Amino acid sequence: MYVVCVSVHVTNEHVDHFIEATLENARNTRNEPGNVRFDVLRQEQDPSRFMLYEVYRSPDDFAAHQQTAHYLRWKDTVAGWMAEPRAGVRHRSVFPADAEWK
Amino acid sequence: MYVVCVSVHVTNEHVDHFIEATLENARNTRNEPGNVRFDVLRQEQDPSRFMLYEVYRSPDDFAAHQQTAHYLRWKDTVAGWMAEPRAGVRHRSVFPADAEWK
Repeated sequence: MYVVCVSVHVTNEHVDHFIEATLENARNTRNEPGNVRFDVLRQEQDPSRFMLYEVYRSPDDFAAHQQTAHYLRWKDTVAGWMAEPRAGVRHRSVFPADAEWK
Repeated sequence: MYVVCVSVHVTNEHVDHFIEATLENARNTRNEPGNVRFDVLRQEQDPSRFMLYEVYRSPDDFAAHQQTAHYLRWKDTVAGWMAEPRAGVRHRSVFPADAEWK
């Protein structure tokens, strides 16, 4: 699997807006054929920091996601709400085996 | 859900040993009643860096994990293989809803 972990630091006044826009993006992304997971997490120690845990079957599936209307809308919508630029780190999965991901 | 994201930077000569020890810990952790996921990821840009994505039903379930024989064995085994101290960040899940995690 191809796993992108995106760290997002949101300005305090836009946290609720960010959650709303990100849930819409997450739900739409889960309907992409190449998407396996889209978990949205909020840091315990700093609730203005989020982690998006995005799992795709391949790098091509991630590239396709970045062309979708819902991703582009999310990207534009949240752009002004970041306290600092968001950072995505790309990984290959080691465990579990590909057939066991859900 | 209670999600702990652990970033690990391993010394190059111990990467294979780290993977072996971590897979054993991951498989045992998945058998804990309070554990929901234990994904092991390897960074695309720097294959000596790993992310452990650990999902528990509650903070108490994570605390119970930290008392298990397999965790304590992993912790001792890998201690000398870190290029820098590992860092765990704790989160609450926002999406999906708790009943939908798998």
